[in-house]
Amino acid sequence: MNIILASASPRRKELLSTLVDKFSVQVSQADEHVSPQLSPTAAVVEIARRKGQAVFSQGHERDLVISADTIVVVNDKILGKPADTDDGARMLRLLSGRQHQVYTAVWVFTPQGEEHFLSGTTVEFLPMTEEEIQWYLSTGEPMDKAGAYGIQGLGSRFIREIQGDYFGVMGLPVSPLWQILKKYL
Amino acid sequence: MNIILASASPRRKELLSTLVDKFSVQVSQADEHVSPQLSPTAAVVEIARRKGQAVFSQGHERDLVISADTIVVVNDKILGKPADTDDGARMLRLLSGRQHQVYTAVWVFTPQGEEHFLSGTTVEFLPMTEEEIQWYLSTGEPMDKAGAYGIQGLGSRFIREIQGDYFGVMGLPVSPLWQILKKYL
Repeated sequence: MNIILASASPRRKELLSTLVDKFSVQVSQADEHVSPQLSPTAAVVEIARRKGQAVFSQGHERDLVISADTIVVVNDKILGKPADTDDGARMLRLLSGRQHQVYTAVWVFTPQGEEHFLSGTTVEFLPMTEEEIQWYLSTGEPMDKAGAYGIQGLGSRFIREIQGDYFGVMGLPVSPLWQILKKYL
Repeated sequence: MNIILASASPRRKELLSTLVDKFSVQVSQADEHVSPQLSPTAAVVEIARRKGQAVFSQGHERDLVISADTIVVVNDKILGKPADTDDGARMLRLLSGRQHQVYTAVWVFTPQGEEHFLSGTTVEFLPMTEEEIQWYLSTGEPMDKAGAYGIQGLGSRFIREIQGDYFGVMGLPVSPLWQILKKYL
């Protein structure tokens, strides 16, 4: 069975390559707008479902398709990818010195049916000075990431601790995904 | 001030490179035998101290020297690096399906004095089948690592969750080290 990763994220690609030797990447344009009445966790599950469904139903009905979506939630507000550096600075000030949650939903579509799970992890940031926020933005690392940070790489120096799944924070929870994939491989 | 990493570990080198642009690696032969009456956490602090002291006092008294040591503790027993694959299998069976602790001690020696800290993280493994243990050993990944696993790479699929510092489990707790280094840079 061919394995398709329905995500353009280089982090997800890197993590999936620790589980399977061979897969391809296929990204489709799924509608990521959901009702504002959905809870953050319901929204991330629904968006991940749409991403996988779009690829699976467009010519990959005989393949195994993996999709994921990740959100950062602080004070019940969802932080997506920053629109610009000002938006990134706003997000980093919200995260500085406190805990937030990162949720990653994963769907696996196969000819035998579909499965999904939701991984939630608490992340605590050290207090960041305004200088550190501006430096971090200047590196460019925050700009393509939910919540304006990457837990790997340059962002690691600001992480006090986590409780949960580090790989979920990176974008693809490896061990629960492995529990599903090993049934098919 | 020149920065010296007193460790041959490629993981520590990779993590330190997220904090500082330029450093060199210098490993010295420190005696790693400590009294069996020391607690595991006292032992890891002492071994890390010796590693750094040996490099600092042998011609690097004007540099900043960083040393670290990491141990895995399960049921109050220390797991070091496996002696061979049988020993690795024994360790992985001990870790399978339960929680253990990983401690990393870090010392920073400078001409202005020395500082150290100890980072402790709880890691929970999924249950591993005997087949998974043998497969993991066959990859070679466990053989140079305390506790016979690497949390990054192929070992990630067996990690259910962690509480604490992911980078401490990898071998160098990035954020507390950064809090020290930024005073000198």
